[in-house]
Amino acid sequence: MEHTRLAEWHCSVARALDVVGEWWTLLILRDALRGTTRFDDFHESLGMARSVLTARLKHLTDAGVLDKLQYREHPPRHEYLLTEKGKALFPVVATLQQWGDEWTAGPAGPPALLVHESCGHVIQPRLVCPDCRGEVTQASTRTVPGPGASGYGDTAGS
Amino acid sequence: MEHTRLAEWHCSVARALDVVGEWWTLLILRDALRGTTRFDDFHESLGMARSVLTARLKHLTDAGVLDKLQYREHPPRHEYLLTEKGKALFPVVATLQQWGDEWTAGPAGPPALLVHESCGHVIQPRLVCPDCRGEVTQASTRTVPGPGASGYGDTAGS
Repeated sequence: MEHTRLAEWHCSVARALDVVGEWWTLLILRDALRGTTRFDDFHESLGMARSVLTARLKHLTDAGVLDKLQYREHPPRHEYLLTEKGKALFPVVATLQQWGDEWTAGPAGPPALLVHESCGHVIQPRLVCPDCRGEVTQASTRTVPGPGASGYGDTAGS
Repeated sequence: MEHTRLAEWHCSVARALDVVGEWWTLLILRDALRGTTRFDDFHESLGMARSVLTARLKHLTDAGVLDKLQYREHPPRHEYLLTEKGKALFPVVATLQQWGDEWTAGPAGPPALLVHESCGHVIQPRLVCPDCRGEVTQASTRTVPGPGASGYGDTAGS
């Protein structure tokens, strides 16, 4: 119940979590971002109950993250393709994977590697500033109220 | 129950979600990354039940994401400080916020802005390749098995 209220918060993190703030959902996205499109392939990869998977795929389709398309008529079969909104979640899953690699991987090392096809290298992507190209970290940033903040610009509008 | 098994998956995304795959937890981290340290301040910001907040803070402390330190003896008061492991979650929350800004913010615009103190600009950070400096997106990358993958290198070890 409280979950649904997240969409009303004046916070983009909370609103994003209203869509993807559930661990099964992020694992479905992980697979979708790696190219999985079909129900049975998601099911085989994730091992979750079919009813739960159906509900999560519907949630992501309703949210505009996935498009559900029929690829066969008899019997009817569908595939789930990432929309632009869905592809835009790549950095969230990539940074989550990178943190997991660094802080939770076992002694054998990372279970999966990211290859940057543009240059062919196995990479650990970095978050940088588009202006000065410097690394963007907690220590080098601060958060300030934006135009969508509750109360922001109230005086200007009154 | 299934949740706890995530730590055993051969996947850094799943293992990361074992720590932070719960939306309250990510909102606590959002606040911690913006400088919140005290129980009452988390409580005031998030409005969650005190018992739930206590459990989530303990979960993050047990996971090594937060350090719990006593800052007053009478009455005993504690603060929660991000560890290096916790600060390393900044890119996850920043990319989540950025996606929320782009795809879920209302007509008024982003509720919060990120200022890069190194250059003083309000920024939308970018995920780039450390080698070629090109943008890292779903379309420009592929995922391959790493040394920690189940079955990876089995023949070499046999």
